[in-house]
Amino acid sequence: MAGLPFSQLDGAGHLRHFLTTEGLSRETLTDILDTADSFAAVGKRAIKKVPLLRGKTVVNLFFEPSTRTLTTFELAAKRLSADVMNINLKRSAAVKGESLLDTLHTLEAMHCDMFVIRHASSGAAHFIARNVAPHISVMNGGDGRHAHPSQALIDVYTIRQHKPDFSKLRVAIVGDIAHSRVARSQIRTLRALGVKEVRIVAPRTLLPPMPEALGAKVFLSLEEGLRDVDVVMMLRLQQERIQGPLLPSLHEYNACYGLTEKKLAVAKADAIVMHPGPLNRGVEIDSEVADGPRSVILQQVSHGIAIRMAVMSMILGRRDAAKEPG
Amino acid sequence: MAGLPFSQLDGAGHLRHFLTTEGLSRETLTDILDTADSFAAVGKRAIKKVPLLRGKTVVNLFFEPSTRTLTTFELAAKRLSADVMNINLKRSAAVKGESLLDTLHTLEAMHCDMFVIRHASSGAAHFIARNVAPHISVMNGGDGRHAHPSQALIDVYTIRQHKPDFSKLRVAIVGDIAHSRVARSQIRTLRALGVKEVRIVAPRTLLPPMPEALGAKVFLSLEEGLRDVDVVMMLRLQQERIQGPLLPSLHEYNACYGLTEKKLAVAKADAIVMHPGPLNRGVEIDSEVADGPRSVILQQVSHGIAIRMAVMSMILGRRDAAKEPG
Amino acid sequence: MAGLPFSQLDGAGHLRHFLTTEGLSRETLTDILDTADSFAAVGKRAIKKVPLLRGKTVVNLFFEPSTRTLTTFELAAKRLSADVMNINLKRSAAVKGESLLDTLHTLEAMHCDMFVIRHASSGAAHFIARNVAPHISVMNGGDGRHAHPSQALIDVYTIRQHKPDFSKLRVAIVGDIAHSRVARSQIRTLRALGVKEVRIVAPRTLLPPMPEALGAKVFLSLEEGLRDVDVVMMLRLQQERIQGPLLPSLHEYNACYGLTEKKLAVAKADAIVMHPGPLNRGVEIDSEVADGPRSVILQQVSHGIAIRMAVMSMILGRRDAAKEPG
Repeated sequence: MAGLPFSQLDGAGHLRHFLTTEGLSRETLTDILDTADSFAAVGKRAIKKVPLLRGKTVVNLFFEPSTRTLTTFELAAKRLSADVMNINLKRSAAVKGESLLDTLHTLEAMHCDMFVIRHASSGAAHFIARNVAPHISVMNGGDGRHAHPSQALIDVYTIRQHKPDFSKLRVAIVGDIAHSRVARSQIRTLRALGVKEVRIVAPRTLLPPMPEALGAKVFLSLEEGLRDVDVVMMLRLQQERIQGPLLPSLHEYNACYGLTEKKLAVAKADAIVMHPGPLNRGVEIDSEVADGPRSVILQQVSHGIAIRMAVMSMILGRRDAAKEPG
Repeated sequence: MAGLPFSQLDGAGHLRHFLTTEGLSRETLTDILDTADSFAAVGKRAIKKVPLLRGKTVVNLFFEPSTRTLTTFELAAKRLSADVMNINLKRSAAVKGESLLDTLHTLEAMHCDMFVIRHASSGAAHFIARNVAPHISVMNGGDGRHAHPSQALIDVYTIRQHKPDFSKLRVAIVGDIAHSRVARSQIRTLRALGVKEVRIVAPRTLLPPMPEALGAKVFLSLEEGLRDVDVVMMLRLQQERIQGPLLPSLHEYNACYGLTEKKLAVAKADAIVMHPGPLNRGVEIDSEVADGPRSVILQQVSHGIAIRMAVMSMILGRRDAAKEPG
Repeated sequence: MAGLPFSQLDGAGHLRHFLTTEGLSRETLTDILDTADSFAAVGKRAIKKVPLLRGKTVVNLFFEPSTRTLTTFELAAKRLSADVMNINLKRSAAVKGESLLDTLHTLEAMHCDMFVIRHASSGAAHFIARNVAPHISVMNGGDGRHAHPSQALIDVYTIRQHKPDFSKLRVAIVGDIAHSRVARSQIRTLRALGVKEVRIVAPRTLLPPMPEALGAKVFLSLEEGLRDVDVVMMLRLQQERIQGPLLPSLHEYNACYGLTEKKLAVAKADAIVMHPGPLNRGVEIDSEVADGPRSVILQQVSHGIAIRMAVMSMILGRRDAAKEPG
């Protein structure tokens, strides 16, 4: 990242903010996954709480409502024993009376430690990270299309639980590749961790202009794309796409690209099925698959807490360590 | 409860959910009241907190707003040291994008421990309890008419503080018996605990079709109904009843069934007066009684916290114990 | 305060509520500032938490929304380890179904310890303090014009950090003196702490009828008013004033009374500049000053947390001490 005007890493290459998976090395990615392992265990204990962030203040700064995302970050911070403040900036009078930067500086002056940013524009988290005081870290809580940088980490973490040797894996990503930042982030992360073959499966209208440039094999047919894969990652079809001109009809989309048990039969017998949620049942995925034995969709939700706990503790824990003598 | 398709008790007869007082044995009821005793003491200490549910996550899932109820459950959970999440599902985008069951399963996957359900339909809590994962317990937070199963427990707990020997008690329940689930639940609980005589007092239009089937003596006259009673339990007159066709006028209702000091004179000298709140002052109860020396209405509020702490700790504490060896 | 029908002090002269700085002795004021010193240090530690109010319940009772104020009180209470409940009474159904006093008594019965009141009318906090049970303390969280009694304490605390010897200080308060309860409270507090000279600077339309009665020197010219001062306290120009008939135009107001680096040049070289926030940049203060080296505006925000922690802990801590034998 040297030479770039802004980096989410500090001078020693450690996470100072968490804005994107872009540019994260295999070493850093593996470090996050390993840390998440210990927190995944915490979630299953009777006392699901560790004192790592006691006395830290995490502020969820939400510029648009998202109960699901807010719940995940709030839970992660509380289980790390942090104090959590939820601020809905859309409703807040603050945005009228003062500028965003004044609001941020006010929160900084209250000695907060981390801002989790949820904003319709994914650039907002970057902008805020560039402008906060040195004692504040920023986590990107995603934008309105449920694209958040934690998702790719959650996905590779979930794959690793079931298929630890990435060098042998075939992974198919199915759905709206063109408009999905998640897909691009997934491909990049899978390749950074050494996955053998990444495939993208979509109708021509939902493929980006130069799909091969992503470093993935392109398939227009679901049946061919799923053949012999170890992992199927379904993308959520966004509402604007469902009603938009790029798809002939939901029925037809479901017939061609909706995942059913029958279509899944060509994948490996022990293939796992993933979806970032929330599900459009009967559109991109049928209930028999979503609730079936090969679905790891709810595991992804659990891992979402563990990944967020891992990133929060790595950022805030390391910062404390950095303050120590030496 | 054997043979029924669903029970709030586990195989050993312990509370696994808390949905209704129906079917709770005298032993279980007494167990809850005894447990509440210890928590009532906690509320009076300088440090009103016990570590019993540390590391547990209690989610208040509110499908309709109710500040009063939410406050009570939130306080109870926090004083047990649980982490508390408040989710307003009406406002939440989640209900649009995904089904209720997907929302529930998502929260389950985040390793939550208890859902407190507040829904306009009292069947919602049962439905959810039937469909949650084994590690989740459900508490019924009531419906929009302030009918929640904790109320009957709060009431008998409050009576027991003042009149410990139930076998000698005469209790009058006054008001809209016909439409009140609270009344039915109160009668059942009072009788299960051995109260000598339960009376219901109401105009004919507010009596159920076969009032005697409830196991209570019926009185149309307040003066007769209150004669020599030890406990007067006033019901709240719901707004739809106040404006509805079953009552001639508020003035007339107050004249005949509104509790005043004068009417109360026929009860025993040490009779106590109860009301579940919020009060319709000047309708079912006059301020001179509500704020008078025989009123225990605010004690009922205090006991509401103790009862909820008791039920939460019994359910979640026992569940942990059940996980131990064997 | 003897002889008055109601006092925020108890019989021993200690704070029982915190409603106003009016009537607080130099000793009490200094006591609060000294206590705030220890909490200001807490904000800079890695673990920004002390267990002083563990097991206490602080309820933020907000009758109008104010994210900034709510955040400050919530953070202060959480860093003292109290349980915090936020209740928005405007949205709450409670206000419809029951009277304010019934709502308060209900919260009292839940064994809460402190109400922080935010209400458009500053009399509300006094009214509530007069009517709560003996175990409840009330803090005034201010009214809609951001006038809260903590502000004057925050200001003198900030001055003391930079200029500890008050007996030599010249302080200028600039802006809408006529309509600002903050200004009156600042003048009184500065004088109670022995500040040598307090000046008020404003156009004639924004001066109170008898300005000298406040105990301050009056200046119509900003240049004269700022000459040789040690401290410049800018007031926020309220929105209704900006659009109202008392000011010719914003441009003209800014030209005459807006603080710029150039105008500040007549003050002492080490003068500090204060503002209670939120800022109207380009109206009463220019960004070059607000963000410049002499601005202590963000320090005021930090000190806001420390002052609130000090007052909360003095009130609730002393109350516990008072319960001890003797």
